[in-house]
Formats: sequence, C-alpha cells, structure tokens
Amino acid sequence: MQAPYYAVIFTSTRNDGDQGYAEMAQKMEALAQEQPGFLGMESAREQLGITVSYWENIQAITQWKKQLDHVDAQRKGRSTWYSGYRVRICKVEREYSFGKLSF
Amino acid sequence: MQAPYYAVIFTSTRNDGDQGYAEMAQKMEALAQEQPGFLGMESAREQLGITVSYWENIQAITQWKKQLDHVDAQRKGRSTWYSGYRVRICKVEREYSFGKLSF
Repeated sequence: MQAPYYAVIFTSTRNDGDQGYAEMAQKMEALAQEQPGFLGMESAREQLGITVSYWENIQAITQWKKQLDHVDAQRKGRSTWYSGYRVRICKVEREYSFGKLSF
Repeated sequence: MQAPYYAVIFTSTRNDGDQGYAEMAQKMEALAQEQPGFLGMESAREQLGITVSYWENIQAITQWKKQLDHVDAQRKGRSTWYSGYRVRICKVEREYSFGKLSF
C-alpha cells in the first residue's frame, strides 16, 4: 500500500461464549473485501482483540460503517459479543517493512 | 486519549523458537512507558502479531525509534526474531468507544 491511506484500529474485549461471533467475523471480513476503497485487514486476539482494516480514504470508511449488514453486526456487537471496544480512525502517513511479508 | 495523537502499527510474523523474545518484549514495553510522549500500547498475536503503540506526536516516535536499547532490539528483531514486519506511522484523527474498557 502506498501512504497516505487510512486505517481503522478496532480494539475489543469479548463477552464469554461464541454466540455466532466467529461466523459473523468471517462474513464481515468477506463483506469488507467487497467494499469500494477496501485495501486489507489484519487481526489477532489474545485477551485483547485487535483488528486493523485499511482503506483508500475516509469516504470508504464512512460507507462501510453504514453498510446495512455491518450495521446489524455492530448492533449485535454491542448487545452480545463485546464487553467493550474502541475505534480509532487514522491516517497512515508512512510505512516501511522488513523481510518476508505474507500479510 | 484525545485525538489528534499518533499510532504506530507494528505487524509481524515470528521465526520459530523464543530465543529471548518474550523477555525482550517485556523490557521494551517497560522502556517505552518511560519515554516522553508515550500514551499506551496494545498487543495481540495469533499467526500474525499486531502491536499498536500510541504517542503524543511524531517527535516522540522518532526519539523512541532511536533509543539505544530499542535500536539493539530492532537489530535482533531483524537477525533473529522476525521473519517479516511492517511499521505504519499514523495520525489518529478521531476515536469513539463502547462499554467497559480495561485497555
């Protein structure tokens, strides 16, 4: 990816039990990939979950936030899956890398 | 934290074996906390590791990158611990949150 572009850092803690979470997470990642301006997504979870998605511009992020199935997932996230989360909208100003990157 | 501030997104894949990695990671987190302008750090690793550190401004990030023990850790990271990594320097433009946040 060529800076500048945008990143959404989503950090979260989960409530106990899957309750359809894993299936939704897969669906949302597939759906995000179809959105205009989507560049990529990276995730890891231990106690804390971190998902970073990358976007061409702010408009693409705003559209994704309003996408209807995603709005449903956000609602269920608040009612069921997450005990808490934080969303940070960021402008990626520069980047560099080392070695073999499969991501 | 009150936007705007800065985030460094560090994504990495590890080589096999610990080789002092866990100890270094703990040390570097403790050391980062002592740096001027440090705001916080969040990490999770599955196949991919994601560490996001937060800083008041770009100067604080530049200083941390040059900090001598950290320079040593970066060198050992390239020679030993990481098969690959990417560093993204980002300006956090806004944030919002939901629920209980212990992070």
